[in-house]
Amino acid sequence: MFSPLIEDLIRALRCLPGVGPKSAQRMAMYLLEKDRDAAGLLASSLQQAVEKVGRCSRCRTLTEQDVCSLCHNPRRDHTLLCVVETPADVLAIEQAGNYHGLYFVLHGHLSPIDGVGPADLGLDLLGERLGEQVEQGISELIIATNPTVEGEATAQFIAERARAKGVAVSRIAHGVPIGGELEYIDGGTLAHAFNSRTVL
Amino acid sequence: MFSPLIEDLIRALRCLPGVGPKSAQRMAMYLLEKDRDAAGLLASSLQQAVEKVGRCSRCRTLTEQDVCSLCHNPRRDHTLLCVVETPADVLAIEQAGNYHGLYFVLHGHLSPIDGVGPADLGLDLLGERLGEQVEQGISELIIATNPTVEGEATAQFIAERARAKGVAVSRIAHGVPIGGELEYIDGGTLAHAFNSRTVL
Ligand SMILES: [Zn+2]
Ligand SMILES: [Zn+2]
Repeated sequence: MFSPLIEDLIRALRCLPGVGPKSAQRMAMYLLEKDRDAAGLLASSLQQAVEKVGRCSRCRTLTEQDVCSLCHNPRRDHTLLCVVETPADVLAIEQAGNYHGLYFVLHGHLSPIDGVGPADLGLDLLGERLGEQVEQGISELIIATNPTVEGEATAQFIAERARAKGVAVSRIAHGVPIGGELEYIDGGTLAHAFNSRTVL
Repeated sequence: MFSPLIEDLIRALRCLPGVGPKSAQRMAMYLLEKDRDAAGLLASSLQQAVEKVGRCSRCRTLTEQDVCSLCHNPRRDHTLLCVVETPADVLAIEQAGNYHGLYFVLHGHLSPIDGVGPADLGLDLLGERLGEQVEQGISELIIATNPTVEGEATAQFIAERARAKGVAVSRIAHGVPIGGELEYIDGGTLAHAFNSRTVL
């Protein structure tokens, strides 16, 4: 129906998460009919980001800088380090707004079946970070990997290594979300909430 | 929160229709974390389309070819010409599947207040098409502009010009959608449906 270049564009737009065939068509028509400047800008932003965005040499989050702005920030608490699976998790925690330490981004979790081992998650770099005694060293490692089988296994693995270096380790709490209604919470979460109950 | 190049990418993604701040972030993270090949491909598809996609010299639809595949197709009925506002309208009619003639794309409607006049809509080219007597000429011009004030005015303007050239002109029907329930149809549509009632 459309010409080859337009079909190519629609196909490429469909690779975006949450974009089905109808929205990809609508996006292509919009860009070509109404806003070619935006299309050109998006093309160059993508090109620039793909070429230049790498990982922070301290925390491995996505950035084109050698050291990211969070790791650079003297107003953060450099004695706390929070381990997360993805840069999106950093954003979620930052938006919650009550954590003021640093992060370490794994970009995944241990998954022997997919060939993802400690080296792929930057655990050597994490080990170095925990061994450093620059100014104050890390006083607490907070593990915020996802509460999945792989996320838990990764948390255990990291916790053992950190304890071996004498660093205090904690795991963020999992349970019924605040404001969540019990009747809509899945069984696994409820079971965890009971097992992890605290004394009042 | 994100580095400048990532913020630029998120901002550029937000120009896509239907993409809010959250989805733009999710898209940027997905492309940079999971699929840089897709990001590179999208960048080059956008670049190619912006540079090369122009308008068909016969029907003005979007294409990188001089004459689009629809205008080229010998199996279409070249005596019927349907006037639409946008290339997306061509797609909608093609998907309905019962029209087999050719199209003419205005890329808008007459709108003196926005400075959009007949020349902007390619009405000179349309006039030439209607005057042609290649093989069989156009036997009927079907006007399918939108049923808005501007779309109606545009339809009237084109109809007069076509009649002056001795071409039969028709307008697609407007009324209650098939399968639509009367109680949910807006008043304007209902009023039109009554005024345009046909004898049974
Ligand atoms: Zn960093
Ligand atoms: Zn054409």
